[in-house]
Amino acid sequence: MRTNRQATDDSLSYTSRITTTVHGYAALNAGGHLEPYEYELGPLGPDDVDLDVKSCGICFSDVSMIDNAWGFTPYPLVPGHEIVGAVRAVGERVSHLKAGDLVGLGWNAGSCLTCAQCMGGDHHMCAQAVSTFIGRPGGYADIVRAQAHAVFKLPNGVDPRTAGPLMCGGITVFSPFSQFAISPTASVGIIGIGGLGHLAVKFARAWGCHVTAFTSTSAKRDEALHLGAHDVMDSRDEKALANAANRFDLLLSTVNASLNWNAFIGTLKPRGRLHVLGAVPEPLAFPVSSLMLAHRSVSSSPSGSPSDILKMLEFVGRHKIEPQTEHFKFGRVNDAIEHLRSGKARYRVVLEH
Amino acid sequence: MRTNRQATDDSLSYTSRITTTVHGYAALNAGGHLEPYEYELGPLGPDDVDLDVKSCGICFSDVSMIDNAWGFTPYPLVPGHEIVGAVRAVGERVSHLKAGDLVGLGWNAGSCLTCAQCMGGDHHMCAQAVSTFIGRPGGYADIVRAQAHAVFKLPNGVDPRTAGPLMCGGITVFSPFSQFAISPTASVGIIGIGGLGHLAVKFARAWGCHVTAFTSTSAKRDEALHLGAHDVMDSRDEKALANAANRFDLLLSTVNASLNWNAFIGTLKPRGRLHVLGAVPEPLAFPVSSLMLAHRSVSSSPSGSPSDILKMLEFVGRHKIEPQTEHFKFGRVNDAIEHLRSGKARYRVVLEH
Repeated sequence: MRTNRQATDDSLSYTSRITTTVHGYAALNAGGHLEPYEYELGPLGPDDVDLDVKSCGICFSDVSMIDNAWGFTPYPLVPGHEIVGAVRAVGERVSHLKAGDLVGLGWNAGSCLTCAQCMGGDHHMCAQAVSTFIGRPGGYADIVRAQAHAVFKLPNGVDPRTAGPLMCGGITVFSPFSQFAISPTASVGIIGIGGLGHLAVKFARAWGCHVTAFTSTSAKRDEALHLGAHDVMDSRDEKALANAANRFDLLLSTVNASLNWNAFIGTLKPRGRLHVLGAVPEPLAFPVSSLMLAHRSVSSSPSGSPSDILKMLEFVGRHKIEPQTEHFKFGRVNDAIEHLRSGKARYRVVLEH
Repeated sequence: MRTNRQATDDSLSYTSRITTTVHGYAALNAGGHLEPYEYELGPLGPDDVDLDVKSCGICFSDVSMIDNAWGFTPYPLVPGHEIVGAVRAVGERVSHLKAGDLVGLGWNAGSCLTCAQCMGGDHHMCAQAVSTFIGRPGGYADIVRAQAHAVFKLPNGVDPRTAGPLMCGGITVFSPFSQFAISPTASVGIIGIGGLGHLAVKFARAWGCHVTAFTSTSAKRDEALHLGAHDVMDSRDEKALANAANRFDLLLSTVNASLNWNAFIGTLKPRGRLHVLGAVPEPLAFPVSSLMLAHRSVSSSPSGSPSDILKMLEFVGRHKIEPQTEHFKFGRVNDAIEHLRSGKARYRVVLEH
């Protein structure tokens, strides 16, 4: 076990000077196995909370960061940003949470609270937003810290054991329905049935839409129907795509690979939107005419706003929507990551203590 | 002079069998000079109107079609789709127009009136929409025909001599302000100050927005300010673009060439939109992360809906917005086109009788 006695939080000006020892799992270099890793959090800031981590989903972006796929991973890296935890301690100015509250914590652990984005409810797009696990230790640990406004009480009806994946994968695919005010009359296509896509199918179905699942994995066809899709298409069948011209109001793509974007855009109705949520490494490319002739849009978005997270938690509680999860103990974190890498996860892997 | 005595309208089942002889100007092959060209229109359909053409703007898409730049030009081609005309004859079912009414006619001369797009007010996106000048003779002529619902009375305050360019170039750049409900608090960038762009600057200024003109033509910098821009940027100055990060809510690109799209997307605020209105021949290409991190969109649209055309005509009348035009007699159509090709037009060339 390695240890790091340096505070990873620079809030030393606060009056409390008690530090907290955390037992986490860190990648020490690109692509490496995670190892037990002990570190100290500095004194709790007045607007912060510490959570006893109950569970943490494994988002594919954790894996991308472990692998340094985006080129900016700081090591050691303690991943994890789909967290359910119990409030362990609250800062002196925090009054809306108390010890023991069960809360969720996602991609963002804090923001400036004063910029135009924060003041407008878009804390997740604050230029000073703090990622839960980049440049600070995340949720693959027994304790995690966040600004109090970045955690959200789980309402009744939301199972804390499976709620973690809602906090990143879930809100990422829920947000477009809220942000674009998708109508229940809409025909929606979900491209890629995995950690994000399986939740998108469930959300779209509960939203009242017609739902088509796109997958290139034949084993997932029946699963997609079971998740709530009305029909399934092969995302690599260009003939089928051509035959689906003018069918969709909204396409949500959750895959991390380049697709024939122009073929998918061609399946959009006039005024339709292709919303790309996968971290596709190559540039998106398509002819402008594909957008122009039918007033179409291509867009993307990061996770979701605090108010959309609250809407999502209320919505999933009311509609009894739950991530489909597989659970591993934290001590088997490397097995869990390997399972995700293998493509066999159905659909979100969750670490728990 | 060539003649073509074949009816170009197949409405021979109508009771009236009177044909109309038209004197127009046609391109007979790709890139060729226009030549006087005489043809017959078949009997007037019950829902149609014939217009005595007063003037017709030259849109760059006329030139692209003359040159067969898009590969689907049918020759002979009588271009022209920025038309002001006086109603000459109305079909038997037309009651809202009468002979002598001054009207405008743009890209579309008709649509099916029964599909979801037509029934929803999006006649310009009807799959059966008839282009004013593709597959039928357009406005470079003394007479042009259209379905009566595709022409729009010019309200008081709109000068018929300069109104033609509103009907395509104008509505193309007006439509996004209406469709996206752009707020007067928005910061808007207009890329390319030409036939479309100069009107976009005027519209954006009258809309109440902060307006930045992007041009790579130094001679146009002062002109752009005179048109109403608050400031001007060089569209090829990548350093200036990098310094303009997070500045714009809306960018309207009116140029027909590829730009550094990613650099422009970087100038958008969170939730900002790049709306591309130029017929760029190469694919649009940019990293998805540029959209994702700030919930941005890239989109395009064709001309505009009938209701937006009516809104535009009311708006320009009230705000005394007028295309800046240069006028040529129809007999000098080739000189006029050459002037446009030279890049010297300020800003829209209009043919008139």
